Amino acid sequence: MHLLEERILKDGKLFPGNILKVDSFLNHQMDVGLMNEIGKEFFRLYGDCGVNKILTIESSGIGIACITAQYFDCPVLFAKKTKTKNIAATVFKTQVKSFTHGTTYDVIVSKEFLHKTDRVLIIDDFLAEGNALLGLIDICQQAGAEVIGCGIAIEKAFQPGSSRIRAKGVRVDSLAVIESMSGGEIKFKQE
Amino acid sequence: MHLLEERILKDGKLFPGNILKVDSFLNHQMDVGLMNEIGKEFFRLYGDCGVNKILTIESSGIGIACITAQYFDCPVLFAKKTKTKNIAATVFKTQVKSFTHGTTYDVIVSKEFLHKTDRVLIIDDFLAEGNALLGLIDICQQAGAEVIGCGIAIEKAFQPGSSRIRAKGVRVDSLAVIESMSGGEIKFKQE
Repeated sequence: MHLLEERILKDGKLFPGNILKVDSFLNHQMDVGLMNEIGKEFFRLYGDCGVNKILTIESSGIGIACITAQYFDCPVLFAKKTKTKNIAATVFKTQVKSFTHGTTYDVIVSKEFLHKTDRVLIIDDFLAEGNALLGLIDICQQAGAEVIGCGIAIEKAFQPGSSRIRAKGVRVDSLAVIESMSGGEIKFKQE
Repeated sequence: MHLLEERILKDGKLFPGNILKVDSFLNHQMDVGLMNEIGKEFFRLYGDCGVNKILTIESSGIGIACITAQYFDCPVLFAKKTKTKNIAATVFKTQVKSFTHGTTYDVIVSKEFLHKTDRVLIIDDFLAEGNALLGLIDICQQAGAEVIGCGIAIEKAFQPGSSRIRAKGVRVDSLAVIESMSGGEIKFKQE
């Protein structure tokens, strides 16, 4: 998605350790106009797939998911990160390893809101190692829900996330795919 | 706001200790259509106030804030909860006491995205004790930004939050104001 790539080049900031910060427009301050174009593009890609629920994970996926859901006319469900040891029997639970922080946390979704009749589009802002998405896919599988695909704003293609998800047989569509960002220069994968 | 009150009566769940759960439509699963009506109402209330930024706090305020921002055509900024001891000099920081959990956490906003020229509408899903909102107001004051008002979906009027915020001279508009919820019955304040 040309608009998103241009914005990353203009306002993204590179830091050592392959860190790309897009917090001026995507995950701290959010440009809702841009997010609307992102949502429109996800609808172009998944609009004919019978999606009836959008699933994301707190916090930075929530904005994109809500704006996108307006096109699909379906509810958004966001998985919650928790450190509570006593998880109720009323939730689906999975563990996600944070690549950035080197820690593992529990992620939960209430059983009340995810069912085997659901056709789920998973939305997130970033895909790198893919751990969060694999956790969300696991939760959908526990519920017996069908994962239609994963709609991602920015993918770091030099990390294994998308391969790991496709290896599960799940479709992935990333709107800006970064092939490399070494030497302070961002190179996108050509469509 | 009649639509929101009706929805609370229909799908809200009361638990001991004055706990109202609205996680089927507002803060776990989210009804984006309802959130759109909420955003429209905030725009009716604040549309002529020159708002140029919407500020909220992760996580459950983000969805409403993003949908609302579409009406105001302005960016959303969400404050982050953090437990990191080493807070960078590049952020505004405040402390918020969680009434529910009895703990205190730090809340941060990057100095890059909040300025003294900003006219800020603060948005959140709930107002009870008001600690989170007071924290957001404190952050705006640190930045020298003007707080135009606080747009709240659901207020528990039997807790002191709105009084504490109005005592700071800040306007508060809550779309559903719960006067009491004792005995398993929710009573709204008449407009």
